[in-house]
Amino acid sequence: MVIVNQMVQYPQIDRTFAALGDPTRRGILERLGQGSATITELAEPFGISLTGMKKHVRVLEDVELVTTVKVGRARLCSLGPRRLDDARQWIDTYQQMLDTRLDRLGELLERTKGEPQ
Amino acid sequence: MVIVNQMVQYPQIDRTFAALGDPTRRGILERLGQGSATITELAEPFGISLTGMKKHVRVLEDVELVTTVKVGRARLCSLGPRRLDDARQWIDTYQQMLDTRLDRLGELLERTKGEPQ
Repeated sequence: MVIVNQMVQYPQIDRTFAALGDPTRRGILERLGQGSATITELAEPFGISLTGMKKHVRVLEDVELVTTVKVGRARLCSLGPRRLDDARQWIDTYQQMLDTRLDRLGELLERTKGEPQ
Repeated sequence: MVIVNQMVQYPQIDRTFAALGDPTRRGILERLGQGSATITELAEPFGISLTGMKKHVRVLEDVELVTTVKVGRARLCSLGPRRLDDARQWIDTYQQMLDTRLDRLGELLERTKGEPQ
């Protein structure tokens, strides 16, 4: 039996998980949770260049976790509208699948207990 | 006010999110949820080479989502012990932070309603 890609597919989920797989990008999201910030304000505490910070922000913008708006000569970054419900849903479904699998293995062990070795 | 990295840190979370950011690797986990499989059995439905599949499995093994055991000349892959609780926890905390932030913006809008334009 081969069942592949049985779980719900979400178009942005690849890039979303990839975007979250970087400590600086998760740090940016955590920082923006305290309030909006310009690229300069974001770059400073992380000790990275403006160019480096712009790249990270672009990745987060691409998956709608961050929105930016130009204010004068600065670019103000805020948390975007995405709630990560798709990523959470994938993990929930995975955990349910894992539990079912472990239950089945447990049953199998129980059943083989009574059998001759 | 600058609060960075306030959220709980997990040692493996970077590589875990990165590992999940690939549709083939999520597909492998979903397939293994149906039962253990050899590298050859995994590679076939995805239409990728054995070498390519070995690399994907190695990435999942590194973050303990998959365990493998050599059985004769084949390598049998099974779901590992990790439940992704850390990734789920990070997303939960993010969503709570986002809700708090949206509540605060809502309050601000309410308050400014009464003020002269």
